[in-house]
Amino acid sequence: MKNLKGALLLGQSGGPTSVINASAAGVFLEALKQENVTDILAAAHGIKGILNEDFIDIRKEDIKELENLKYTPSSAIGSVRYKLKDENDFNKLLVIFKKYNIRFFLYNGGNDSMDTCNKISKFLKKSNYDCNVIGVPKTIDNDLAVIDHCPGYGSAAKYIATSMMEIGLDATVYDSKMITVCEIMGRHAGWLTAASQISKEKGYGPDLIYLPEIAFDLDSFYKNVKEILDTKGKVIIAVSEGIQTKEGLFIPELVNSSLSKDAFGHAQLGGTASVLASLLANKYGVKTRAVEFSLLQRCASHLASQTDIDEAFNTGKRCVKAATAGVSDKLIGIVRTSNNPYKIVYKKIDLKDVANEEKKIPLEWILEDGKGLTNEYLEYVTPLIQGETKQVKQNGLPVFAKLKKNKF
Amino acid sequence: MKNLKGALLLGQSGGPTSVINASAAGVFLEALKQENVTDILAAAHGIKGILNEDFIDIRKEDIKELENLKYTPSSAIGSVRYKLKDENDFNKLLVIFKKYNIRFFLYNGGNDSMDTCNKISKFLKKSNYDCNVIGVPKTIDNDLAVIDHCPGYGSAAKYIATSMMEIGLDATVYDSKMITVCEIMGRHAGWLTAASQISKEKGYGPDLIYLPEIAFDLDSFYKNVKEILDTKGKVIIAVSEGIQTKEGLFIPELVNSSLSKDAFGHAQLGGTASVLASLLANKYGVKTRAVEFSLLQRCASHLASQTDIDEAFNTGKRCVKAATAGVSDKLIGIVRTSNNPYKIVYKKIDLKDVANEEKKIPLEWILEDGKGLTNEYLEYVTPLIQGETKQVKQNGLPVFAKLKKNKF
Repeated sequence: MKNLKGALLLGQSGGPTSVINASAAGVFLEALKQENVTDILAAAHGIKGILNEDFIDIRKEDIKELENLKYTPSSAIGSVRYKLKDENDFNKLLVIFKKYNIRFFLYNGGNDSMDTCNKISKFLKKSNYDCNVIGVPKTIDNDLAVIDHCPGYGSAAKYIATSMMEIGLDATVYDSKMITVCEIMGRHAGWLTAASQISKEKGYGPDLIYLPEIAFDLDSFYKNVKEILDTKGKVIIAVSEGIQTKEGLFIPELVNSSLSKDAFGHAQLGGTASVLASLLANKYGVKTRAVEFSLLQRCASHLASQTDIDEAFNTGKRCVKAATAGVSDKLIGIVRTSNNPYKIVYKKIDLKDVANEEKKIPLEWILEDGKGLTNEYLEYVTPLIQGETKQVKQNGLPVFAKLKKNKF
Repeated sequence: MKNLKGALLLGQSGGPTSVINASAAGVFLEALKQENVTDILAAAHGIKGILNEDFIDIRKEDIKELENLKYTPSSAIGSVRYKLKDENDFNKLLVIFKKYNIRFFLYNGGNDSMDTCNKISKFLKKSNYDCNVIGVPKTIDNDLAVIDHCPGYGSAAKYIATSMMEIGLDATVYDSKMITVCEIMGRHAGWLTAASQISKEKGYGPDLIYLPEIAFDLDSFYKNVKEILDTKGKVIIAVSEGIQTKEGLFIPELVNSSLSKDAFGHAQLGGTASVLASLLANKYGVKTRAVEFSLLQRCASHLASQTDIDEAFNTGKRCVKAATAGVSDKLIGIVRTSNNPYKIVYKKIDLKDVANEEKKIPLEWILEDGKGLTNEYLEYVTPLIQGETKQVKQNGLPVFAKLKKNKF
């Protein structure tokens, strides 16, 4: 624990979320209050921005715009997918940290980014350079270990649940048979797709939910779909993009020969939903439709959960408070202390316990045969989607923060 | 003009919208007030429901649920795509109209449905059966002739503009080159895709907008994309699903051999955006992404325009008022009398003038080379997206109307 004085640097990393900027707002606004913080820098495009000394001078921004970051989706200072390569990268980093007197380093991202954060922290310590390093958790995937849930997940879950309710009505209006397959993000963990259970519980479907936690079996899938098709005439299915067979094949790989290369030698046009919809159309001769939730599930700030926004913002603030109070090598994570009423605390968690770990849905929460999730999951997720965003609208449209992005 | 007394029948037809049920709410609530209306029937799945005598008894529904139809997307009583085939169909219809003493027939749909409506009206008149027939306009496509705009369009435009602003931020966070192609509905008219101009004007892109009104030229498309790729590094493109080359080919047909048949003999997996994204990835070797707005652009009631909701509701009410006042063979359409301040009137328009006509975007509103639309379009569309929906939320989710759907 060292109480330092110097510049604070924030970087954003990995895929954007609806509330990643809410954490940035928390970081910047809190940093402005802290006497030990001299300059406040934001790295354009995460680690790459640091290595290129591409810094934004946050003290030159309007407070009003910084506050409105709370309601602005995506990565306002630019994100990156970059792994620190070798000793050279680390040495360069050290030179730059010294040059700008960076004494507080905050990195906002998922498990990869927490690993980066952890490595930087260790390297700086080894190099005898005093700097408090704090991870700011963020991911719609909700797959960070140790913590209860991750900022970004509640908003994505709210978007998925609401959209699935709407699609549930839309996909059933005709009196003809119809199968709708909705593809939701999540390569290894099914947290996002699980959120469709909220809509199912309200009575709007999906009928079937497939998560990557359970090996996907095509025959049993066909059987389940057929059963519902025969009784209800309409089937709505939610699938994680990352579902795999027990042999470890992703869905597009099931039809590899026709899909993986088009006329231009370019890989797979259709994703998981497209392929399943096509397989079902072929097998049962009914109209099918594939819907990909795509980018909007991670950037639809107009439908963000205010609970999530506030938690992301508070996480950012607490990260700065911790760093300036001498804490290092930790992330500030949310731990639930009570569900009814919903209560949380922000806890300091060792970066090494989160780095590169992946939290999946407990298997006992998943019903067999694509039947969805248990009430335990619903009790877990419901508090996270509460509260409508206080995003300001002007002329019928959201107003996003506009940063000047003056170079430091 | 005949003042009749008897049952009122409403049918919904064609693709759903966010506000088609707002019109139904207007029809039902107004019908409940009218002394000349005896029974109030809703045809399950439009014309098919009529031919099958599959009627819902609206007088048995709770008023509160009927009121909440205003905020419930999709076709609550079921929709249909069915063209009246022959004399048999018409004769059957007449027998059923007589049996239920249907004296007011309202049909809610787009130009095909207005044609159906017109034909029924003529047939009943020829058969000397007194019935006032009124069309209730509805379509997200906004392609109905004569009227200023169509209920359903404003909400879809608001969804597209808002989502495109969010995607505009999301698709530009990395420092690597990237092309994002967004596919928006609209087979022949580009009104929906045009709404992305609202986002462009706010500074969030898309960089390029392609509408079906202008023949699509692949070479000039490549050139335009390349120019932006070289200067900005990121390109966001909005395309109507219905864009065609001057030879009349849809985009998926450009790569026919590889796309139109997959391993299962089933037609095109990828749509317009997928194919364009694949072509661009192949040509420029950069990461591309295809985003289809899909069903949500027509059912995202959580982002509906309150202006649109109110207009759809009022249209429904006025249709009943007209029918019970003796008007027949008309639709009730919105005509704008002033833009600043925005003022409209509801006008009676001959069904025959709208039936099967298709209103496209005036060519003088479209800039060349995919550069977007003029200010005339923005002035036209801006009033239509105003007002946030008053949809009730409970536990973080919308509350949709639940009808009992008692058989009549």
